[in-house]
Amino acid sequence: MKQHLKKIEFLNFDNQKGSKPVGNQQTLREKIHEVIFEADTFAGKLFDVILLIMILLSVVVLMLDTVPRLHLKYGMIFKSFEWVVTVFFTIEYFLRLYSVLKPLRYIKSFFGIIDILSTCPMYLEFFIPGMNSLMIIRVLRLLRIFRIFKLDSFLNQANFLVVSIKDSLRKISIFLFFIVLMVTVFGSILYVVEHNKNPGFDSIPNSIYWAIVTITTVGYGDISPITPLGKIIASFIMIAGYAVIAVPTGIVTSGMISQYRKNPTKSCLNCSVESHDYDAKFCKNCGFELN
Amino acid sequence: MKQHLKKIEFLNFDNQKGSKPVGNQQTLREKIHEVIFEADTFAGKLFDVILLIMILLSVVVLMLDTVPRLHLKYGMIFKSFEWVVTVFFTIEYFLRLYSVLKPLRYIKSFFGIIDILSTCPMYLEFFIPGMNSLMIIRVLRLLRIFRIFKLDSFLNQANFLVVSIKDSLRKISIFLFFIVLMVTVFGSILYVVEHNKNPGFDSIPNSIYWAIVTITTVGYGDISPITPLGKIIASFIMIAGYAVIAVPTGIVTSGMISQYRKNPTKSCLNCSVESHDYDAKFCKNCGFELN
Amino acid sequence: MKQHLKKIEFLNFDNQKGSKPVGNQQTLREKIHEVIFEADTFAGKLFDVILLIMILLSVVVLMLDTVPRLHLKYGMIFKSFEWVVTVFFTIEYFLRLYSVLKPLRYIKSFFGIIDILSTCPMYLEFFIPGMNSLMIIRVLRLLRIFRIFKLDSFLNQANFLVVSIKDSLRKISIFLFFIVLMVTVFGSILYVVEHNKNPGFDSIPNSIYWAIVTITTVGYGDISPITPLGKIIASFIMIAGYAVIAVPTGIVTSGMISQYRKNPTKSCLNCSVESHDYDAKFCKNCGFELN
Amino acid sequence: MKQHLKKIEFLNFDNQKGSKPVGNQQTLREKIHEVIFEADTFAGKLFDVILLIMILLSVVVLMLDTVPRLHLKYGMIFKSFEWVVTVFFTIEYFLRLYSVLKPLRYIKSFFGIIDILSTCPMYLEFFIPGMNSLMIIRVLRLLRIFRIFKLDSFLNQANFLVVSIKDSLRKISIFLFFIVLMVTVFGSILYVVEHNKNPGFDSIPNSIYWAIVTITTVGYGDISPITPLGKIIASFIMIAGYAVIAVPTGIVTSGMISQYRKNPTKSCLNCSVESHDYDAKFCKNCGFELN
Repeated sequence: MKQHLKKIEFLNFDNQKGSKPVGNQQTLREKIHEVIFEADTFAGKLFDVILLIMILLSVVVLMLDTVPRLHLKYGMIFKSFEWVVTVFFTIEYFLRLYSVLKPLRYIKSFFGIIDILSTCPMYLEFFIPGMNSLMIIRVLRLLRIFRIFKLDSFLNQANFLVVSIKDSLRKISIFLFFIVLMVTVFGSILYVVEHNKNPGFDSIPNSIYWAIVTITTVGYGDISPITPLGKIIASFIMIAGYAVIAVPTGIVTSGMISQYRKNPTKSCLNCSVESHDYDAKFCKNCGFELN
Repeated sequence: MKQHLKKIEFLNFDNQKGSKPVGNQQTLREKIHEVIFEADTFAGKLFDVILLIMILLSVVVLMLDTVPRLHLKYGMIFKSFEWVVTVFFTIEYFLRLYSVLKPLRYIKSFFGIIDILSTCPMYLEFFIPGMNSLMIIRVLRLLRIFRIFKLDSFLNQANFLVVSIKDSLRKISIFLFFIVLMVTVFGSILYVVEHNKNPGFDSIPNSIYWAIVTITTVGYGDISPITPLGKIIASFIMIAGYAVIAVPTGIVTSGMISQYRKNPTKSCLNCSVESHDYDAKFCKNCGFELN
Repeated sequence: MKQHLKKIEFLNFDNQKGSKPVGNQQTLREKIHEVIFEADTFAGKLFDVILLIMILLSVVVLMLDTVPRLHLKYGMIFKSFEWVVTVFFTIEYFLRLYSVLKPLRYIKSFFGIIDILSTCPMYLEFFIPGMNSLMIIRVLRLLRIFRIFKLDSFLNQANFLVVSIKDSLRKISIFLFFIVLMVTVFGSILYVVEHNKNPGFDSIPNSIYWAIVTITTVGYGDISPITPLGKIIASFIMIAGYAVIAVPTGIVTSGMISQYRKNPTKSCLNCSVESHDYDAKFCKNCGFELN
Repeated sequence: MKQHLKKIEFLNFDNQKGSKPVGNQQTLREKIHEVIFEADTFAGKLFDVILLIMILLSVVVLMLDTVPRLHLKYGMIFKSFEWVVTVFFTIEYFLRLYSVLKPLRYIKSFFGIIDILSTCPMYLEFFIPGMNSLMIIRVLRLLRIFRIFKLDSFLNQANFLVVSIKDSLRKISIFLFFIVLMVTVFGSILYVVEHNKNPGFDSIPNSIYWAIVTITTVGYGDISPITPLGKIIASFIMIAGYAVIAVPTGIVTSGMISQYRKNPTKSCLNCSVESHDYDAKFCKNCGFELN
């Protein structure tokens, strides 16, 4: 169980246990901590909901502000709104720093970095114009949504996904390594075949880019072979990509299925090894009888 | 078993049991109900087949009427046909209302809403021109086809699909939430990288649209990166999308397989072995009769 | 076992058992039958290999003849070659008719139809020009390749695929029915949204074509939405298509896995039911002990 | 187990056992062999890391040299660098030949061929200009990376992939054979339907190329149907391709899952239960020690 919960730590790390004393009288600092970091109390939940709405609105406004037509019309309103949100986020950031027991741990955490990256650019804008588009990174703050919908089943599902994918990661990275080799070789071959006749294949990097676009079946069509030989080789790549897509799918699926077979609550009382099959009667590690 | 049947209620909800008295003498209302709502009698089956053919023809005519060349030539015939069908559907709708015991329940049901949405627009056309394209929604009335081919095995298959997907829905929605975040972040990065040189990336919403087109491997090619850095980042997104497609596939497949196994109503009372085939009558492990 | 072999009958139906007498003296007709229909003897194997090479060459020549540049240069040679092959195929066809016991059964069989369709057009060319492109259908005669590589394991693999897919066919057809409805509704919505501003969405049939191109992730880009609303709706379709691809994959995979679990050689001695699980000890149908 | 290791022989074949004598005094030849062919000693590891970095740099330089803008600016530097690397590789090649006991076996091995193919073109360049792009093949030398990260688990993963895919290869090749037939037939039909109106379908080979681009869902859009009939048939191909992608995925996934289960070396000697985890030491069913 412990192992499983650890995996999704980055999603609910905020709950810094032990930072709230048992006594009845809460200091201001404790109250702030409760509102900002906890989602169980009414105030905490309200704060989280308001925060998420502000993040969403701010992201939408950031997006719309880049649409030239809307920028001309509502640019000033958008800018003002962004300033309000940014000031709010800045205050929130310092309150977080103030209320946690270990501020440094927060600063270096996943959300701590996201929080600062989504606030800074607005201020840096004074010195380097065009920085504020980077604030879109604050969309990642929405990951906090998992705190509000803290339902066990929901977290379990996310957990299941993370564990399954994590187990498959090594296989998938080997697979991707082969894909990179494949794409390099095929891209270079197409370069040799096409580059005299086709401006799209004017260099090997561009040809490799084309091979990636093709093998992943994206197929923009901005670059495509025009010589007969090029088309024949391209056909091989496409059919290879078509068959090869089966590999990551197979990896993840078989990983998930073996995950399904595991019972997370079954752990050996003797050696405390976990992840036994549902039908296991004895510990696979020490042979001790389970349950 | 009850649970399974419940899931596909929306496909055969029409069978309002208890609305037909046991006596021999049928009132007109009962006769209409039998013809319209039941597919077991000859009259009921005939009505359903005629209805489905009319729906199909009407949908085809609606489509063809939007082809400029055909509209010029056959516009009047198409219009007349639509009026005939619409009047027929209107009468049918009122007969349905008249013959069911609980008209309000029908009105608020899935098919009740479809039925009214596929008839209204023709009348609203008088007031707001251009509404009639919306009548294409009557294609959804074809879902009634499941009533005619009321074969158990067919319904079981549909049932199997619905249950499997329903079980996977929560995992898939978490997955889609991550995809949305990914697409927002990557779209914005490409906007920052490309928007000065590439009119396709003129705003963040357009860049996000591009990221969606890319990560789903659709790849229209109406927008595609032109700067070297943009192409490199785009390559990452494509390969990510290629590997990531494995996730929903893995979710649905492992869900279906555990569905295949589960068969909750069939576990042997003698040796408690599970995972029998759906058509099994005896335990495969001890030969004990099941159920 | 019988059931399994039946499934791939269309691949090796040629072996018309009983058409060869047991006696030592073979009539001419029997000799021809042996050469043409059987792949076990040297003459039969040689004939098959020559036939396959001629089919392949003929198909390649047919293709190249449609390339304008090559047609100008080698058109006459190509034409002559096609005539040689066609005459050869014609003689072969009549020899097949002559040597089988039941010619009508051959004529109406899968390969009988392919054989005549791949010979006729050359003669019909006299009356209706442009017919000969249809001769490409003779590529399907290559399916006879399975006769030469008559290895059990190879046939077993093909068999495995055919059985798995056949079992999944009903589920997949329900799935495709939903896809057709989805594509019709989404195509029509995009038509309503885009058709005033985008010539690509000039009619509902074209819009449905676009929806198919999009949901299958082909994405030519010949038609693509240009209005903001159209792009938003298109994004939904793409993401839906991305998630929905998981369904047929899940169906086929889970079908194959349950197929893997079945032991084709295990059949009940009491009720002769087949397809028991590998770990089954008792018949699932009658409870009789297996083996 | 032996069988498993054999499968990935081509990845670690370098370890030619028996070529190193047991005595303390190493000849020069033995020292060279140790440095070049073994990754266990410090010198061997260092050599491998330097080699990999040189390969990587050389590949990157080769790519960049084909970019016209960079070639003009840094062409001379690139050329010099390639000469340095090529000379280094040449010396390395001869040292390999000198230090192994069976040089011929090395020359004919997978890496032996890669090694010579990635060195020659630079010298051939004197006689046939434009050959040096072929040197990109030296990217395949990166496969030696598996020697450095010689971690068991990593090799096991690669092994798992190779075995799974090898088992599925026969099924996938049957599947691809059907795809080739399908693509030929559909491509030819589209040629007949479109070639008078659409320059993209000007010959059957081009039409088949289009069919491949479509069925693999790549969809460049350089060729796409424009007639209504062509679009209808294309829609069928797309939907077929969409459903058919499920087949290789199903093959590989079910192969991997049965691979996961199988674990041929681990069946309990006491109760003969199989399907233990790879890391299991005791039978999950009876607690008996495995192996």
